[in-house]
Amino acid sequence: MDDDRLRALTQRLRDFSAARQWERFHSPKNLAMALAGETGELIAELQWLTEDESRAPAAERLQRVRDEAADVFIYLVRLADALGIDLIEAAHAKMDRNEQRFPAGSAPGHGAP
Amino acid sequence: MDDDRLRALTQRLRDFSAARQWERFHSPKNLAMALAGETGELIAELQWLTEDESRAPAAERLQRVRDEAADVFIYLVRLADALGIDLIEAAHAKMDRNEQRFPAGSAPGHGAP
Amino acid sequence: MDDDRLRALTQRLRDFSAARQWERFHSPKNLAMALAGETGELIAELQWLTEDESRAPAAERLQRVRDEAADVFIYLVRLADALGIDLIEAAHAKMDRNEQRFPAGSAPGHGAP
Amino acid sequence: MDDDRLRALTQRLRDFSAARQWERFHSPKNLAMALAGETGELIAELQWLTEDESRAPAAERLQRVRDEAADVFIYLVRLADALGIDLIEAAHAKMDRNEQRFPAGSAPGHGAP
Repeated sequence: MDDDRLRALTQRLRDFSAARQWERFHSPKNLAMALAGETGELIAELQWLTEDESRAPAAERLQRVRDEAADVFIYLVRLADALGIDLIEAAHAKMDRNEQRFPAGSAPGHGAP
Repeated sequence: MDDDRLRALTQRLRDFSAARQWERFHSPKNLAMALAGETGELIAELQWLTEDESRAPAAERLQRVRDEAADVFIYLVRLADALGIDLIEAAHAKMDRNEQRFPAGSAPGHGAP
Repeated sequence: MDDDRLRALTQRLRDFSAARQWERFHSPKNLAMALAGETGELIAELQWLTEDESRAPAAERLQRVRDEAADVFIYLVRLADALGIDLIEAAHAKMDRNEQRFPAGSAPGHGAP
Repeated sequence: MDDDRLRALTQRLRDFSAARQWERFHSPKNLAMALAGETGELIAELQWLTEDESRAPAAERLQRVRDEAADVFIYLVRLADALGIDLIEAAHAKMDRNEQRFPAGSAPGHGAP
């Protein structure tokens, strides 16, 4: 039995969309736009906080950030599914490259966590 | 044994950051900005394609989209971890609400896949 | 008399912020986040429309797009002002480079209108 | 003679696109995506800086921010032109509303500079 939580969520999102016949709206182009829209909502929750405040947000704000992170995640999973992308594999491949590019002692650059 | 792939990736990202002492850069504020930056790169790959072209991109473009989706995913997982957010649980909670808000026959609205 | 509309708007935004003592919130970092947040709201208005529908949106949607475009513009002008950037000059400099990079007959690439 | 710099830039962008027959790529949907892509590039320049560092960036970084701000501005002006939106008028209308919503002494909220 595959109890992988990400695969189960991916299937739930497919079923939800199919039950409403929304596949016609779910071109990767549109899904990328929706992802950007939700990323904007997440950013808006943190824009006036200092970095330190953002490390320990008040409970109400944290719940809103949780909701927006969920929305970003939902559209990312849906977009990956639409294009046959395995997000976990792709992330590990990218981290393999990051380990080469950013040895111990280097500062973060664009694209590196 | 918990072979959940998302939890394993989360741990890899923690270890990578700790090994480079990058936690000071990884405030949720900064991680949200990095997420937005990578979302922008993903969008840029699809902006001049039609919706139909976006459903079947050429192999080179698909690989770039895969890389950008990986970057978005990496920062989202890192941001969620920094704030103690379980992305899978949060996504399911949001989908429970979406099932109430969008019964069969409705059109997608803001926030709905 | 300088009746340049962009300079007049820039001054109005400075006065608005000063009257409320908001300069402490208006670091370029925060202003860039606010810009991204509003860009997300603008994108959300168009994400489920086809390209053709987006060329002729219904009146209510067009008004919302107008409001979001205004918000994006306001933060962009404020960010430029905070960093001493003249947006018009910078745009013309970029277009000078674009004319070199994209001769007649070429397709749009990243960064080219 | 109308020496308004924004109107002159708007015309230059129209001419550039027409000379390359790029109007077919310039649906508002695509222009909004391009705007989001460039916003992402701008954000990426500031994501690892502190707020204070962002107020006084090094010369090389400031030049890159200037270039990205120019790209954001170019796509915003092009998008507004495609939809018949006067950005300056729309911004003033929004600021009129902001003056009602945010009297002296209030903190910035979503949508307020």
